[in-house]
Amino acid sequence: MLKVGVIGASGYPGEQLLKLLLAHPRVTLAAVTSRSQVGKPLSQVVPSLRGQDRGLTFTGSDAAALAAGDIDLFFLALPHGAAAEFAKALVPAGKRVIDLSADFRIADLATYEKYYGKHHAPELLAKARFVLPELTPPSWKTEARLIAAPGCYPTSILTPLVPLVRRAGGAGGIISREHIVANSHSGISGAGKKTEEMYLYVERAESIKAYGLTKHRHLAEIEEQLSLNAGGGHITIQFNPHFAPMRRGIATTITVPAAPGATIDMLYAAWKSTYDGRPFVQILPSGETPDTAHVTGTNRVDMSAVFDARTKNFVITSVVDNLVKGASGQAVQIMNLWCDFEETAGLA
Amino acid sequence: MLKVGVIGASGYPGEQLLKLLLAHPRVTLAAVTSRSQVGKPLSQVVPSLRGQDRGLTFTGSDAAALAAGDIDLFFLALPHGAAAEFAKALVPAGKRVIDLSADFRIADLATYEKYYGKHHAPELLAKARFVLPELTPPSWKTEARLIAAPGCYPTSILTPLVPLVRRAGGAGGIISREHIVANSHSGISGAGKKTEEMYLYVERAESIKAYGLTKHRHLAEIEEQLSLNAGGGHITIQFNPHFAPMRRGIATTITVPAAPGATIDMLYAAWKSTYDGRPFVQILPSGETPDTAHVTGTNRVDMSAVFDARTKNFVITSVVDNLVKGASGQAVQIMNLWCDFEETAGLA
Amino acid sequence: MLKVGVIGASGYPGEQLLKLLLAHPRVTLAAVTSRSQVGKPLSQVVPSLRGQDRGLTFTGSDAAALAAGDIDLFFLALPHGAAAEFAKALVPAGKRVIDLSADFRIADLATYEKYYGKHHAPELLAKARFVLPELTPPSWKTEARLIAAPGCYPTSILTPLVPLVRRAGGAGGIISREHIVANSHSGISGAGKKTEEMYLYVERAESIKAYGLTKHRHLAEIEEQLSLNAGGGHITIQFNPHFAPMRRGIATTITVPAAPGATIDMLYAAWKSTYDGRPFVQILPSGETPDTAHVTGTNRVDMSAVFDARTKNFVITSVVDNLVKGASGQAVQIMNLWCDFEETAGLA
Amino acid sequence: MLKVGVIGASGYPGEQLLKLLLAHPRVTLAAVTSRSQVGKPLSQVVPSLRGQDRGLTFTGSDAAALAAGDIDLFFLALPHGAAAEFAKALVPAGKRVIDLSADFRIADLATYEKYYGKHHAPELLAKARFVLPELTPPSWKTEARLIAAPGCYPTSILTPLVPLVRRAGGAGGIISREHIVANSHSGISGAGKKTEEMYLYVERAESIKAYGLTKHRHLAEIEEQLSLNAGGGHITIQFNPHFAPMRRGIATTITVPAAPGATIDMLYAAWKSTYDGRPFVQILPSGETPDTAHVTGTNRVDMSAVFDARTKNFVITSVVDNLVKGASGQAVQIMNLWCDFEETAGLA
Repeated sequence: MLKVGVIGASGYPGEQLLKLLLAHPRVTLAAVTSRSQVGKPLSQVVPSLRGQDRGLTFTGSDAAALAAGDIDLFFLALPHGAAAEFAKALVPAGKRVIDLSADFRIADLATYEKYYGKHHAPELLAKARFVLPELTPPSWKTEARLIAAPGCYPTSILTPLVPLVRRAGGAGGIISREHIVANSHSGISGAGKKTEEMYLYVERAESIKAYGLTKHRHLAEIEEQLSLNAGGGHITIQFNPHFAPMRRGIATTITVPAAPGATIDMLYAAWKSTYDGRPFVQILPSGETPDTAHVTGTNRVDMSAVFDARTKNFVITSVVDNLVKGASGQAVQIMNLWCDFEETAGLA
Repeated sequence: MLKVGVIGASGYPGEQLLKLLLAHPRVTLAAVTSRSQVGKPLSQVVPSLRGQDRGLTFTGSDAAALAAGDIDLFFLALPHGAAAEFAKALVPAGKRVIDLSADFRIADLATYEKYYGKHHAPELLAKARFVLPELTPPSWKTEARLIAAPGCYPTSILTPLVPLVRRAGGAGGIISREHIVANSHSGISGAGKKTEEMYLYVERAESIKAYGLTKHRHLAEIEEQLSLNAGGGHITIQFNPHFAPMRRGIATTITVPAAPGATIDMLYAAWKSTYDGRPFVQILPSGETPDTAHVTGTNRVDMSAVFDARTKNFVITSVVDNLVKGASGQAVQIMNLWCDFEETAGLA
Repeated sequence: MLKVGVIGASGYPGEQLLKLLLAHPRVTLAAVTSRSQVGKPLSQVVPSLRGQDRGLTFTGSDAAALAAGDIDLFFLALPHGAAAEFAKALVPAGKRVIDLSADFRIADLATYEKYYGKHHAPELLAKARFVLPELTPPSWKTEARLIAAPGCYPTSILTPLVPLVRRAGGAGGIISREHIVANSHSGISGAGKKTEEMYLYVERAESIKAYGLTKHRHLAEIEEQLSLNAGGGHITIQFNPHFAPMRRGIATTITVPAAPGATIDMLYAAWKSTYDGRPFVQILPSGETPDTAHVTGTNRVDMSAVFDARTKNFVITSVVDNLVKGASGQAVQIMNLWCDFEETAGLA
Repeated sequence: MLKVGVIGASGYPGEQLLKLLLAHPRVTLAAVTSRSQVGKPLSQVVPSLRGQDRGLTFTGSDAAALAAGDIDLFFLALPHGAAAEFAKALVPAGKRVIDLSADFRIADLATYEKYYGKHHAPELLAKARFVLPELTPPSWKTEARLIAAPGCYPTSILTPLVPLVRRAGGAGGIISREHIVANSHSGISGAGKKTEEMYLYVERAESIKAYGLTKHRHLAEIEEQLSLNAGGGHITIQFNPHFAPMRRGIATTITVPAAPGATIDMLYAAWKSTYDGRPFVQILPSGETPDTAHVTGTNRVDMSAVFDARTKNFVITSVVDNLVKGASGQAVQIMNLWCDFEETAGLA
């Protein structure tokens, strides 16, 4: 049994992570920290864990003590900035770290600082790897000590697009590198547990509202990953996020011009060669569209695409549970692969 | 007091129309027909009207008798096809007719038949006018006998786009005529009162799902209207409709490349010159986004736009209540203007 | 046109009140105050009023100036305590005042102070009247200067029960005075616009939760009114309030033992003799149950009852929109009657 | 690994059962039948199982063939009546059967037939046992061949009440045997997957509505179980079921007069002595109330109680997930105990 710890577990992704780890067959949850909840039983803060918290209580967040202890792997479920501080203590001590924040998702420091402000541990960027398990080449498993788990919107966008941008432009290209438009609608848990008027039940029920247009922080990792995978040049996308009246789930609809001569079969072939045999990416037949409700509580991306003969665009739709494949489930999947557990352990 | 009748009032738009007409200060609701509900009090079929239905009952739908009667104006709240049949009886008898179906929205017969199948009254197309009150030149008020009220998605798309396509391309153009992408999310009442598994509460709660990709029937009127207003050539758009877990409301997000040299100020100036003084189009400052919940129960379109300097696109967001400005409220607004009532009578 | 003012309009009942008054055919909304929103246009704070706020802005709350001005009637949409302070200035100046808070709902000062703490204007209690328009004898229209509009839960409970407690016990009695159990489920707007974790969308969706058991403040007015109407002795009820995942609406289910020999016909006869011809109380046939969604946005109470032959209980179900008949609509109805307007003016 | 089969898995409880069994560490799902879905992959009918259905397809429902096969244990997820027919074939063949329908929940044939009509296998009643795992004495594990899993409402009512009725009346009694009132609010999945107007999203959102008053079928098992546990005489309760706008969950609020001299501590002592160490019954402190959202997806009952000094009633609140502890999860729990697996296997 692997000993794991969770640093900062009082938000929605943290709660989901605790549920997954408490039920995981290969790990022992050895420490859960939260500055604001020290001393409380897990299930007092996360009532859905009643009867399942194995008597654990929240402890304080002493990074040095954790670094000196016997826990093998830590999940950081902290705001960006705070995550970097913990990574600075834990990584040099030889701990494996999986960070759910944005701190190590962006390889380019300038890009990070443009979107997030000053980085608190730039010296660790070289040791960190952004890992989308189905897309990142497997060498990360031995090379990295610090893994950045992708964000929720990026997972819903990169999973369908990366196999296509790898074949963008040029002969045999599938999609255009330009005029990519991604509209995403997120359940309200995507905003975190913020006690602001904006997130009250009465305000968000029966409401769809765009937000963060032109400047959402997830643009940084979406575009960096697309560009790295496209093999040269910067890919710019139009990313339009919205809130929708659901607790969980992200639905993303991407419009992208087909490359000249590209067909829907070529698109599906690219997807299938990338995802064949991967349990957490499900490709639906063209013409059938995925549904956020079908992935709630799962670690899956469901996706499909259609070619619009009128516009010569591909229209791609994908769905994820923002708290599972978009956050905690993906972090557990990363752990499973990193520690040579079955990829689906604790996730199905 | 104008005597009005409603033909076919048992669906969601019909219910909303009854509410509006029963409370309207200038009309008397003289007849309400429904093949399936004959003899029942209105409030038995529409319980939200309890105490307000003035003792009215549903009557049968004898088109000839209605044509011979003393009702001045009819609203057709029927499926397409059925609406044309009634129009054939009522219009020649000198009745004013406002049709909420698609039968007379499309000027081009071939386009209609491509999307909807055989037209049942093509001879009336020349007498019919598609009226989006804020955009259609006012001559319709004296020339037409048969008005097609626009669809819900088209209202949310045409209201922001028509002032811009009138200035598309050429010197001083605001937007590109190409790469227009409209993503719309509709509340479930947009599907009508269909007793299919797809529309059950349990299926649609916590669910966003795209549907009708590449072939939604509203494309016909959206593109015809955009093209007519663009002054030449056919404008093709990518229209991606979705269902979202709300009872009512449509949120539309449009991405369109800015014309070379166009600015957000030029876009707002075009909007303001079109909509200045119009009570039912509210233009929000750039950077503020509209919210479906803010227009529920109102006859408004709320909309705003932003220029994305990274992509050189405008991102436009608009919201309507699909049952009011997207259907029944707009029909009442049309009646108000047609009959020289105050435009807002019964609507605020 | 009657000049009216609204004191403290930034909460959910205040917003609803503004909508009703702005559309009311007999009044001019002359002042709207809010300490926190001074200087802002109404529609900036209440976006659903865009285009309908007649250019009004929130003003400060100077009670003395308001008392000296030319406004005829004030609605107080303030927390308890604050309402009493304004009443102290406005009532002696001859203004008509309709208070939506609890400050003047309880005739018995000790009861008030037990539930709400110190009363800030006990000297006004003698001039105040609790008015449930369908139940309070009409002399209030000439005698009172200060009207307390009932609370939302009490409206849903008193409307069905008062006609029955008037006939409780004794020969010909309909219901027992004991073992009355009222379970109520309220939409989240019933909590007001509180930015607390408890009221976040993610917390309240898919959630029903009892709260305030044994001590909800509305008990004070429910029991006082039941007791006054029962003609002697104190009636105690079990009142169990809950939150349910809706924006609006209260559904109340009351179980009460039938008096010996009482029949469902006697119950219905008592209801009909009380409510015959009253537009805002709709009595459904026994066996049909009311639905919160059918009264959303209306000023109605819908209710019905059934006799359970197994238990010898009546089971009574009633529904209201907590923001309309449970608050602002009822206040407007009171104004209508007080000022000899049509009872339904601005409410249908 | 135990070989299990599911008969009739296309409804909501059946879907949930498939999810639980596919992830269960001790069983192999060997057959899934559905008359209407023969030949389809599980995940085509239950899309949330994509990637997890192990290639299983729905097969036909040939009872004789199943009885002759090598499957050890069957779950019947069928309507009442149909379940009895399968039990007639499977039980005599020596198969273990766990029935999720009502067919074998009622020991008294006359009671069954009063509520459900003619029984199709009355000869099996003697071999059947109603098993609420925390309450039924453990001898069922060896004596029975056919287990009736309790209904959803009954689970939410019997779990808190049975320990109290065992101590009803008499010296040391905790609650009255009379004036028991249970109000329950169920998510819409409780109605099953019925394509009726009543269950459409638009009809049920923002809606609470009582139904089945005085005659809900679950009364049969609730009262029979309460009476059996009370040790003599028939206990009659007032049971008022409602639909509430949630996908899942039941919230039950029970009002019952305290026995003379009974205290809240006595009530809690009775609960604790019954449920101490049972993972799926969580007792919350008096004053804290359970929340349906906290048990979604779990096999728990969360419950608490308070004594109302004004009314001398206990008010008890309990919540369950109607599809898990109220149906499929409880059936799996029964299997776990019956087959000597860990009680929580596959359930946490």
